[in-house]
Amino acid sequence: MAILSAVATEVFIPVAAVIGIAFAVVQWVLVSRVKLSPAAASAGGGKNGYGDYLIEEEEGLNDHNVVVKCAEIQKAISEGATSFLFTEYQYVGIFMSIFAVVIFLFLGSVEGFSTKSQPCTYSKGKYCKPALFTALFSTVSFLLGAITSLVSGFLGMKIATYANARTTLEARKGVGKAFITAFRSGAVMGFLLASSGLVVLYITINVFKLYYGDDWEGLFESITGYGLGGSSMALFGRVGGGIYTKAADVGADLVGKVERNIPEDDPRNPAVIADNVGDNVGDIAGMGSDLFGSYAESSCAALVVASISSFGIDHDFTGMCYPLLVSSVGIIVCLITTLFATDFFEVKAVKEIEPALKKQLIISTVLMTVGIAVISWLALPAKFTIYNFGTQKDVSNWGLFFCVAIGLWAGLIIGFVTEYYTSNAYSPVQDVADSCRTGAATNVIFGLALGYKSVIIPIFAIAVSIYVSFSIAAMYGIAVAALGMLSTIATGLAIDAYGPISDNAGGIAEMAGMSHRIRERTDALDAAGNTTAAIGKGFAIGSAALVSLALFGAFVSRAGVTVVDVLSPKVFIGLIVGAMLPYWFSAMTMKSVGSAALKMVEEVRRQFNTIPGLMEGTAKPDYATCVKISTDASIKEMIPPGALVMLTPLIVGTLFGVETLSGVLAGALVSGAQIAISASNTGGAWDNAKKYIEAGASEHARTLGPKGSDCHKAAVIGDTIGDPLKDTSGPSLNILIKLMAVESLVFAPFFATQGGILFKYL
Amino acid sequence: MAILSAVATEVFIPVAAVIGIAFAVVQWVLVSRVKLSPAAASAGGGKNGYGDYLIEEEEGLNDHNVVVKCAEIQKAISEGATSFLFTEYQYVGIFMSIFAVVIFLFLGSVEGFSTKSQPCTYSKGKYCKPALFTALFSTVSFLLGAITSLVSGFLGMKIATYANARTTLEARKGVGKAFITAFRSGAVMGFLLASSGLVVLYITINVFKLYYGDDWEGLFESITGYGLGGSSMALFGRVGGGIYTKAADVGADLVGKVERNIPEDDPRNPAVIADNVGDNVGDIAGMGSDLFGSYAESSCAALVVASISSFGIDHDFTGMCYPLLVSSVGIIVCLITTLFATDFFEVKAVKEIEPALKKQLIISTVLMTVGIAVISWLALPAKFTIYNFGTQKDVSNWGLFFCVAIGLWAGLIIGFVTEYYTSNAYSPVQDVADSCRTGAATNVIFGLALGYKSVIIPIFAIAVSIYVSFSIAAMYGIAVAALGMLSTIATGLAIDAYGPISDNAGGIAEMAGMSHRIRERTDALDAAGNTTAAIGKGFAIGSAALVSLALFGAFVSRAGVTVVDVLSPKVFIGLIVGAMLPYWFSAMTMKSVGSAALKMVEEVRRQFNTIPGLMEGTAKPDYATCVKISTDASIKEMIPPGALVMLTPLIVGTLFGVETLSGVLAGALVSGAQIAISASNTGGAWDNAKKYIEAGASEHARTLGPKGSDCHKAAVIGDTIGDPLKDTSGPSLNILIKLMAVESLVFAPFFATQGGILFKYL
Repeated sequence: MAILSAVATEVFIPVAAVIGIAFAVVQWVLVSRVKLSPAAASAGGGKNGYGDYLIEEEEGLNDHNVVVKCAEIQKAISEGATSFLFTEYQYVGIFMSIFAVVIFLFLGSVEGFSTKSQPCTYSKGKYCKPALFTALFSTVSFLLGAITSLVSGFLGMKIATYANARTTLEARKGVGKAFITAFRSGAVMGFLLASSGLVVLYITINVFKLYYGDDWEGLFESITGYGLGGSSMALFGRVGGGIYTKAADVGADLVGKVERNIPEDDPRNPAVIADNVGDNVGDIAGMGSDLFGSYAESSCAALVVASISSFGIDHDFTGMCYPLLVSSVGIIVCLITTLFATDFFEVKAVKEIEPALKKQLIISTVLMTVGIAVISWLALPAKFTIYNFGTQKDVSNWGLFFCVAIGLWAGLIIGFVTEYYTSNAYSPVQDVADSCRTGAATNVIFGLALGYKSVIIPIFAIAVSIYVSFSIAAMYGIAVAALGMLSTIATGLAIDAYGPISDNAGGIAEMAGMSHRIRERTDALDAAGNTTAAIGKGFAIGSAALVSLALFGAFVSRAGVTVVDVLSPKVFIGLIVGAMLPYWFSAMTMKSVGSAALKMVEEVRRQFNTIPGLMEGTAKPDYATCVKISTDASIKEMIPPGALVMLTPLIVGTLFGVETLSGVLAGALVSGAQIAISASNTGGAWDNAKKYIEAGASEHARTLGPKGSDCHKAAVIGDTIGDPLKDTSGPSLNILIKLMAVESLVFAPFFATQGGILFKYL
Repeated sequence: MAILSAVATEVFIPVAAVIGIAFAVVQWVLVSRVKLSPAAASAGGGKNGYGDYLIEEEEGLNDHNVVVKCAEIQKAISEGATSFLFTEYQYVGIFMSIFAVVIFLFLGSVEGFSTKSQPCTYSKGKYCKPALFTALFSTVSFLLGAITSLVSGFLGMKIATYANARTTLEARKGVGKAFITAFRSGAVMGFLLASSGLVVLYITINVFKLYYGDDWEGLFESITGYGLGGSSMALFGRVGGGIYTKAADVGADLVGKVERNIPEDDPRNPAVIADNVGDNVGDIAGMGSDLFGSYAESSCAALVVASISSFGIDHDFTGMCYPLLVSSVGIIVCLITTLFATDFFEVKAVKEIEPALKKQLIISTVLMTVGIAVISWLALPAKFTIYNFGTQKDVSNWGLFFCVAIGLWAGLIIGFVTEYYTSNAYSPVQDVADSCRTGAATNVIFGLALGYKSVIIPIFAIAVSIYVSFSIAAMYGIAVAALGMLSTIATGLAIDAYGPISDNAGGIAEMAGMSHRIRERTDALDAAGNTTAAIGKGFAIGSAALVSLALFGAFVSRAGVTVVDVLSPKVFIGLIVGAMLPYWFSAMTMKSVGSAALKMVEEVRRQFNTIPGLMEGTAKPDYATCVKISTDASIKEMIPPGALVMLTPLIVGTLFGVETLSGVLAGALVSGAQIAISASNTGGAWDNAKKYIEAGASEHARTLGPKGSDCHKAAVIGDTIGDPLKDTSGPSLNILIKLMAVESLVFAPFFATQGGILFKYL
């Protein structure tokens, strides 16, 4: 047995979660020291307060009006985001209720709603809890996962809109202070999310155990609903938020930057508030839900596989909880890592920002490797058995350590490759920028080619991780590899959230009429944020690929399939249709962004044409109408792609059965991963190619610029095309592949008994 | 046994091929009646001669100078194309020789270069010819396939460059005459190619039979080299030609249309000759080789599966030759179909062109359905047995008819869906055109979304064909379904080739300084050609998907694999890496086009800037340098993508073995089909959206135009981006998936015995 006792496990997990939450609160307190009300600020005069010495004094910087204005804008953004999320959650709430009923009915029908105990699926001699109750508990865990996901997204948005104006104000004191504020706020979100995901899952398991007792098979089967809940909310968050933010962004840019030649985030642009709200509902709330979903699913996949292996059969609680223990260690490791950015070192100049963020990735990966080694030694027995499609596999504790570690390091490799292809410090983006010489067409051709090329190494990294971790510990190995990639999620999220906060900070500086030097600082923060956002998406996609494969494996085990043979036509047609789904989904989401942007463009044009004095800055635009357009469009447009993803497994499983569904899952996985990576890298590269030309930091960049040159205009077109690719369709695709897999897993008992009616009766 | 005797089969196939060739010659004679030399013309005065009454007399139309000028330009284009193809063939010749040696060595090594007879693979009791001789015959058939492919492409190019100026001259007499000339020339190519492919294959089989005698297993195994040869040449033709044509096209457009505001094909543009040469080497020679490759491969796939089934074991020659008989019937059916366009009906107005071409598709499909029914009844026994991964399957003759027919009709559905998404008569393209209102960015977003969406129905059509034909006759069913889709290849090629010929005709009219009314007529021909080109690509991709699946099945059988289990990590990593290959390949080809276009742009700009009087038309540009840039770039750039495709199966098979290779093939197939369809439809839609705005045929179109408006400029950017998608990377992808499959099949004996060394020693 393991060194760590069951009691120690029961204590360690919640303690780690509480430490994480406490750390998030501390970071929040530190951020809140930056005062937004001028009165309080002049009264306070604390270390970080407004009364502080401003490193670089400039005219008007100390003006109280600026602070008031920043506070006002922040309030407008925060209210817009809150109102959108509440509207979204109303619709999502309806969906959630309906889907909860569907889960209950489908799963309950497996044994004809009988309340009698039934022989277990895996050990036929024993009796397990009736399917009806497992249906009930699955429904409850689905709702818990969904609600946790919504709360995570909402809290993230609240923190981000709390931090953006504070970052702007700190930017007056220097780039370092602004960086710390933005980064700390990101950390609040990262730690809150990682910890609450862990603690809710932990409590749920313990409460469900009261009913299930020794029937761990049923217990962890019902827990998979948690992953489904988390992921289905993530889908709506990503798609709805993605459409919202990009409709506003594209709409604002097309009229503002291209037609009217006014700068980004200019307060005269009617879509500017909608654009800033979008960053918070799309990049923050959407991404928060997304990564929470990945985390919940990889934990569930690992748990469900473990429950039917020796951990489950021998009732080794510590071994069973290994996935949760890895996440607990992750929180501690990320906590230490964060201190490197906030306390041990200090960012003093613009060029130190990107290295500081990169160091976060490296430090967390190195520390986590040690952490995994320790917890694998403490929590796992030296030898244990994993069940794999009917056969058994002996695994050692250091073997499993290797699985988690390879996932972790594959994530780092994917991160660095993504950085190479999307940062304007390297030749790929510079080549794309250079291709703007001959216009927008070559820019687009080079950008698409870059995205396609950027797929190669990440896919090899994923393939190697899969091969190695599967060879060591079958599907359990893949599940823990995914968990390894996500174990540093708190740091990953902190880095990710930092980007949109800086972006908003820049917007607020512009709108509050602050000096261009403030804007330059926030722009520098934002440029680093673009690259880290791409890295975050790389992680999300890489982990999604592993998670869905693990879920796929769990589904196949649960559905009693032992072979998914490509040479069987049932499987092959699933494979080719599955590979098509990401295209269908992308077509829907991209067209939604396009249509919503067209509406936005027309409204912005209308306001410029009909409101006298708008261009001169004497009249105020009607921000609210633009916010409403984005809200309505995203709510309306998120339904068809959402339905496609949620209904496909149900329809395929019910009509065509588990074999075809297996094909669909595998096809969607192998095809979706490619499109997702290429779409997000292409978009990131175009964005940074544009920034490269704008910044004009090198001799080469200056020959392409300045802002407003033909090259720059071509670059702006690329950037606009990239928006829906990198922020709507690309990142939603990883939810598509995960969600279909986890949904299949949850409904596996139903499909296995009732599915495939079309082939049965034909 | 079948009704048709073996002797009748031996007679019918060559007779059908000879009829096809004779028909091609007749069409050629009819085209040649249009005289290009003014002297001969005025002397002749025959029915179609220059002395004819011109339907619409216009000033200068009868001017002898125009004819001389047209002849000159045609000569320049023809010489450029010939010179490029000879250069290309030199490099390809080197590759061919090396690869022939590789085939011989790899296959010869299977039994250690032993010259002794060995037990057969499928009937262990009997003795088959030694592997060394099969290696030799495979090498010979590889060379034959390669040479036939090269000759097909070359002849097609010769015919097209013979016809283009003649089409221009006929356009003076009316759109109907021009249409007939272009279409007849396309038919020459279509029938020559279909017939020569059939006859060479037929002769090869009969000659090889002299050696193999009763060992049909070895005979048809060695015949697969024919498919490999055809397809590998097609790869270089498509990639090299595609880079050539699009570098010239993009380069010419970027400077000419966008910067200098001169019309397309203006003789002042230095890249104009290179552009016209490109149409002939890319769209004509490349496509000819491509479809020849598909035809050769589907025949080989069907033959090799049949040889190990009851046809082969019972030595039923007629049944064995069923694939060739279907193609023979196809030639006769296409001959009749052609008469509907050239003789039974007459195209009198512009709006009749597209319906006339569409009618060709429908008529050929309907007639062919009858033809297949007849030949299935005559050539097949009422019941026969197909071997399927170790099991047997009983098939009836009408069941096999159904397999061929479903492939044929799936092709028609794919054709119509493609038309819907790429013709500007329907809303999808009109929506894309409409999105140009808000600039190039929304145009690109809508265009990409359109391409993604256009994948849905074709993939369902392919999936249904696969399921049905596999259920009926296993992999043999899929092979004959592919053959069914390609059975009307002569008509398909005629329609396809007609497009670039019309395009060239327009270019010649412009360069010869003919009136704009001539240009309008050729433009109308060309617009219909754009849609038919997209339809042709749809066919090519659909058939490629079926062909590669059939080849994949044959490979798996030959390699002795009975299950390709997605749940095995060896297979799964193959699957995900295989799905990545089309992206890698597209990245290479798109970047190649981009780089070559950049060079072209710089040369064209240099000429405009340094040659005095060029813009005024008083000085002649230096066409030759532009031709050289395209030639050099395409030769240099075709090597890396070619190497990727050719080496992948060899490396994967040798190092990782047949299971991983199976995964790679399946992954590349399901992922590549999607990208290929979406890329070619996106490109076609952008091209026609631009043409929609230019033509201004509807109220809506006129609000977007005219030429030179902001909308039109945005549309031109989309069109330029679409060029490499629809003419380079998209159509090359179907060769990628076919070629990897056929190469794996040819090398299957080697991989089965010597492959997978990495896993063996790890």
